[in-house]
Amino acid sequence: MIKFKMAVCQNKPARDKAASIFHAVEMIEKAAKNGAELIVLPEIFYHPYELENILELTEEADDSETLDYLKDCARRLKIHLCAGSMAIRDGNEIFNRSYLISPEGKILLKHDKCHLFDVNFKELKVKESSFFSPGNALNVVETELGKIGILICYDIRFPEAARMLALAGAEILLVPAVFNTVTGPAHWNLLFRTRAVENQIYVAAASPARDNDALYQAYGHSMIIDPWGEIMTEAETDESIIYSDVDPGKMNDIRGRLPLLKHRRKELYAK
Amino acid sequence: MIKFKMAVCQNKPARDKAASIFHAVEMIEKAAKNGAELIVLPEIFYHPYELENILELTEEADDSETLDYLKDCARRLKIHLCAGSMAIRDGNEIFNRSYLISPEGKILLKHDKCHLFDVNFKELKVKESSFFSPGNALNVVETELGKIGILICYDIRFPEAARMLALAGAEILLVPAVFNTVTGPAHWNLLFRTRAVENQIYVAAASPARDNDALYQAYGHSMIIDPWGEIMTEAETDESIIYSDVDPGKMNDIRGRLPLLKHRRKELYAK
Repeated sequence: MIKFKMAVCQNKPARDKAASIFHAVEMIEKAAKNGAELIVLPEIFYHPYELENILELTEEADDSETLDYLKDCARRLKIHLCAGSMAIRDGNEIFNRSYLISPEGKILLKHDKCHLFDVNFKELKVKESSFFSPGNALNVVETELGKIGILICYDIRFPEAARMLALAGAEILLVPAVFNTVTGPAHWNLLFRTRAVENQIYVAAASPARDNDALYQAYGHSMIIDPWGEIMTEAETDESIIYSDVDPGKMNDIRGRLPLLKHRRKELYAK
Repeated sequence: MIKFKMAVCQNKPARDKAASIFHAVEMIEKAAKNGAELIVLPEIFYHPYELENILELTEEADDSETLDYLKDCARRLKIHLCAGSMAIRDGNEIFNRSYLISPEGKILLKHDKCHLFDVNFKELKVKESSFFSPGNALNVVETELGKIGILICYDIRFPEAARMLALAGAEILLVPAVFNTVTGPAHWNLLFRTRAVENQIYVAAASPARDNDALYQAYGHSMIIDPWGEIMTEAETDESIIYSDVDPGKMNDIRGRLPLLKHRRKELYAK
């Protein structure tokens, strides 16, 4: 890992997909101009989180206009870009998929949401498994900036997922997500900070901005958290770009003083 | 699990072991009088957390006067008692051990701290592995109150440990602990709440009271947390007894609406 500046674009998606993507790229351009070398978008960054409507906007894995546009954007701005997530058809299945794109416009890593959000709150019922197939892999990629892993939203509730990435060497965890106004106030801060603390990694939580007219209201509060669990920077609910330095010296100091990953008792975790 | 009242006694241990134990039992008596059916003491509840001095006070597993005294206490008060933790010699090894005692004065469960706290902070250096052997098991017991598991302090940093207990059916996690004034403000609240949230269990975090004259200052802030991660009751840094109802209805409602344990993707967690 090297020292660099990371940014999260907490954009507010409109119902017009093309306009949303165009606007997200404007925010990416601004973040790049301000020196960010890794820029992260939220889950389904181009539309409010409405599963029926999102499904209609599904693109093909081999022929995604949006992905091509974002590859061009990364190449033009010479940045690493985590393209939030998109509904992508791959073979006969549709995934909630995130890509990490290199400054050369190449795909470095993709992640399909592994844990699908099927919940039945009084205020809110969601069944992602009616729309998406779950991903089947948890991978990490070595980049020029450091080792990076991606999870999507509900994946963060499962400590095993972030742990697998940390054990595979992840130093930076990118999490496009759309928590809501039920789970957000209760658990957003807690879960993202704990994943940083227990794995001693940097964590970027990328949410869309709040839309008070939406049925499913995004929590907002995008954050970048350091390996000690401190929130380095946090958005409110409105549109904004947040920035933080990522510092390998800080991570290595914490890991040296409190060697959690070395203190694991793997032989006791047999389930 | 049934509905019942739980208490944590945040006692302030003195350097006189016998006096500390006598005082802890006074607090247990008060908690029982107030209706608590499960009462939890902190880690090394009979002495400030000073490893050299604690080691001198080690008792034998088969012949612990303190354990006998606490068994009598549980029987007399007809309570379930988690006897914090004690330095216990078992064979050739010394463990940091906790016991759960039944209202009949029987040992229902014992837990030896599995993860030993070897850290090297600027403000604080500790090497538990020079004093204790690590435990080698993570077990749960079915009681009249519900299924109970125990971890001790540093064990809580490892999500796998609480997860193993939850997968073995734990509904209530008891954690005698002594965080300090470095790790406490940064991580105490965060880690205990997250273990409750991700496993959807009740968690009791039992700390000694703060002693401002001690070299190693206990954080205090004993808490009982519900399966949604809400702090039902929390101590300050002084001596106190905290109480909370434990409610299976609340736990089952949360697990029904957000079925985290069913949504695990075990096949992806292969490390």
